[in-house]
Amino acid sequence: MTDETTPLDRRSFLNGAIGIAAGLGGAGLLSHTVLAQTTAAGSDCAPPLAAGGSFSPIRAEMDVNDCVIEGTIPADLNGGFYATGPDPQYPMAKGNIVFDGEGHVRMFRIKNGRVDYRSRFARTERFMAQDRARRALMPMYRNPAMDDPSVHGLSRSTANTHVLNHKGLILALKEDSPPCAMDLNTLETVDPVYTFDGALPHDRPFTAHPKICSTTGNIVAFGYEARGFGSDVVAMFEIDRHGNKVWEAEVKVPYVCLMHDFAVTENHILLFVIPLTIDHEQMKRGGIHWSWDGTRKTYLGILRRHGDGKDVQWIEGATRSGTHTMGAFEDKGRIYFDTEVTVASPFPFMPNKDGSPPDFVNATSYIHRISANLNGRNKTYEIEKMYPLIAPLPRQDDRYNTMPYRYGYMGCPDPNEPNRARAGACYARVDNQTRTFDLWNAGPTVALAEPVFAPRRTDSAEGDGYLMGVAYHLDQNLRSDLVILDAQHLAAGPIATVKLPVQASPQVHGWWVREDQYPA
Amino acid sequence: MTDETTPLDRRSFLNGAIGIAAGLGGAGLLSHTVLAQTTAAGSDCAPPLAAGGSFSPIRAEMDVNDCVIEGTIPADLNGGFYATGPDPQYPMAKGNIVFDGEGHVRMFRIKNGRVDYRSRFARTERFMAQDRARRALMPMYRNPAMDDPSVHGLSRSTANTHVLNHKGLILALKEDSPPCAMDLNTLETVDPVYTFDGALPHDRPFTAHPKICSTTGNIVAFGYEARGFGSDVVAMFEIDRHGNKVWEAEVKVPYVCLMHDFAVTENHILLFVIPLTIDHEQMKRGGIHWSWDGTRKTYLGILRRHGDGKDVQWIEGATRSGTHTMGAFEDKGRIYFDTEVTVASPFPFMPNKDGSPPDFVNATSYIHRISANLNGRNKTYEIEKMYPLIAPLPRQDDRYNTMPYRYGYMGCPDPNEPNRARAGACYARVDNQTRTFDLWNAGPTVALAEPVFAPRRTDSAEGDGYLMGVAYHLDQNLRSDLVILDAQHLAAGPIATVKLPVQASPQVHGWWVREDQYPA
Repeated sequence: MTDETTPLDRRSFLNGAIGIAAGLGGAGLLSHTVLAQTTAAGSDCAPPLAAGGSFSPIRAEMDVNDCVIEGTIPADLNGGFYATGPDPQYPMAKGNIVFDGEGHVRMFRIKNGRVDYRSRFARTERFMAQDRARRALMPMYRNPAMDDPSVHGLSRSTANTHVLNHKGLILALKEDSPPCAMDLNTLETVDPVYTFDGALPHDRPFTAHPKICSTTGNIVAFGYEARGFGSDVVAMFEIDRHGNKVWEAEVKVPYVCLMHDFAVTENHILLFVIPLTIDHEQMKRGGIHWSWDGTRKTYLGILRRHGDGKDVQWIEGATRSGTHTMGAFEDKGRIYFDTEVTVASPFPFMPNKDGSPPDFVNATSYIHRISANLNGRNKTYEIEKMYPLIAPLPRQDDRYNTMPYRYGYMGCPDPNEPNRARAGACYARVDNQTRTFDLWNAGPTVALAEPVFAPRRTDSAEGDGYLMGVAYHLDQNLRSDLVILDAQHLAAGPIATVKLPVQASPQVHGWWVREDQYPA
Repeated sequence: MTDETTPLDRRSFLNGAIGIAAGLGGAGLLSHTVLAQTTAAGSDCAPPLAAGGSFSPIRAEMDVNDCVIEGTIPADLNGGFYATGPDPQYPMAKGNIVFDGEGHVRMFRIKNGRVDYRSRFARTERFMAQDRARRALMPMYRNPAMDDPSVHGLSRSTANTHVLNHKGLILALKEDSPPCAMDLNTLETVDPVYTFDGALPHDRPFTAHPKICSTTGNIVAFGYEARGFGSDVVAMFEIDRHGNKVWEAEVKVPYVCLMHDFAVTENHILLFVIPLTIDHEQMKRGGIHWSWDGTRKTYLGILRRHGDGKDVQWIEGATRSGTHTMGAFEDKGRIYFDTEVTVASPFPFMPNKDGSPPDFVNATSYIHRISANLNGRNKTYEIEKMYPLIAPLPRQDDRYNTMPYRYGYMGCPDPNEPNRARAGACYARVDNQTRTFDLWNAGPTVALAEPVFAPRRTDSAEGDGYLMGVAYHLDQNLRSDLVILDAQHLAAGPIATVKLPVQASPQVHGWWVREDQYPA
């Protein structure tokens, strides 16, 4: 790779990206959180050093066998912690955004007290074509008109957003395309366009946030722009453990927008239409797919699972964003949808449609509970702020994806420290029953990526298990640790710290694979 | 790997090692050069920041595809730059030395302007046994009495010293054992104990510094302690391109010592017996194999190639060390042996037999020319200092291993800067015809590993080609570059710099494999 002729080389990408954060007074890292949340403190206040991990490129695919461990890996913690994130394969074009880096998938394989680390790029069709051409061939985020003619017909997936295990594979996800399937043990790419045996055509989208049905274990998923580029159709489907598609339906949305996540309850599907809208004019000018249209309302869509989609109701609400679900459930004729919510665009590096500058203050995410009646007679949805934690990446015990749940987990700045520059990055557990939270503060020189919850046993009670996530040390060239905490005693700090010699690959979202889910 | 119970964990190893250098005023790196040479300035003078690379552990095996390049890779530079170095697999025992880390082999594969980096541990018998046991099983440098009983009979090779290509393999070498053979393209270990089809028994030594016969391309090699642990027999052998052993002979040495290197000319073999002697008492106390016995003289051994060894003559000289050959040749009845020479032990981290403290001042290496008549009537050998460069790791155009040659290449501190702390690390070319040298100074925040020379074409004139080596940036957590210079214009600086995202693995010695030497 030459470093000379491209408009934005790797170094300037990194420096530029870091500059966005650092210029706002934050520490030297580029992260979901830093960009979307911690900078939200505004220009009159030092933004916090937040819990959002790092998007700093590394490009090195690595194996570290039998990692150095401080403390002791619990005997009942066996399985794998997988994650993916964008790591630019080639220098990014001017105007492109960090979300367009190639998916670099990593695994901490934990077994009998030993931890082996491995990371591999997802060998997507895009990655392989670019490797041959030695340059970016799809240079602008979700703008196919800018693609090099040589890649027409190839999957545009970067596989850089989330991962999920299925049938002994790890599926690396990007919401505009089918998954990229990788071997669960080796991370070798075994199918760059995984169609679930043809159930999902090569050019169809598949969300980065499928849910696992708490009753059946089925994957419940959706895809937006499902009938082609710019389509207002959202497709939903359910796939059983054997890979069979057992349900599908389609609905039309009020307007075409970034639908990054959704929610599933025992009997319903929830969709959330937000003002990050498709922008054809911007794309014609060579820009990215989305801009924020602050004139738009939100729409909560509710429809029955296993129906034909014709029952969908769209409930209007105020202008907001909500891109990550913590949990959802239904109870006594009412549906509850817990999601992080911002007042303005959560991604200040995406343009505002009216040309206004990024609104960092209102880009701050807080967990809200959105609720509505299931009788179809809502004038609007109800919305309530649940916690004072700045938390764009909330998670739960994933066995509770579609049923009532009590606990949520997230990275956040310490809410007890008013000076956010000194606040430090925390992992938090929220208790929706008592509306309280527990914290572990990793300190002000650490950035924390999104954590995952691993149950102690397959049948443990909710929340009985471990919370783990990657800590990037800002004072050690981003050298990284995996920290493992008792999820019921976060304040006690890590019971084990798995130390990498250098920086971990970038992470957006991660996933826990239980030992019993590995092929024999 | 747990970090708790071992006497010297990875962090304290690293800090301790760095401390050795840093405590002497050097920069934060542990290197052959820093320990053996740059510290030689003594306590009253800041030691230089030297050209010796880094022995800092990393443990991460890596792939970086299509590395970022500043400048342009020359169109006529195609092949692979391989190296190995010690990278502790598990925490090292107290009293052990850096030379006992497991061989971490790396490759910069250069083809058509693209560079791919890969590093893999050599999967030696020792490595695999330790991986299963999750701890060091051969805890003391070349002291088998300290081994765990479970590893009796296994090869003790760490494969951490040098590499050499042979029959489409890369052989990773440690002088106490047969090579570890790895795939030239993948670095997968294909034979942990490579016996040249049985020509070299499983328990026999094979030098880390074989020579390639300039006439035939045969590998000329030797092994000391050849008839078992502590043996005073040195075996020599020659292996042709097809792997057939075409010559072997044995001689007895005046005393058993570390014979790290040797020299080969058109018709002769040169051995150099130095006062780094086997120390049975020290080993009984649980220590390493060697100590420096300053009461010993040196002995230059000369014998005919392809003879039976009975003609060997041993020529006595003053107490010196010489561990790395730059070149050797014979001319008009006289033999010339160019080697780096120190007055005291070049390895101050090995004990002195008399218990005296390390003599850093006299551990400084300078290139000397040792010569003697071939008529067998020498009272002593002649010895002459050739250059004012501190250079423990001299190299040459390896096509000239056994014939008269003009140029040598090495890393060294800048000899023109009297304040060695500011001197910076240089790559130098010496011209034995004019006794002059050219320099490129990489600056004071860089450590340079041993360089290799790559000829422009297979049949280029001597010295017409490229000099390349790894630069570790001391101010960037040892983030490393491969620098490529025109060997005829070193002062012009690198024509290409291949940038790694993190630290390269440690290096002792490296080797260039030409494109025509790869399997089709």
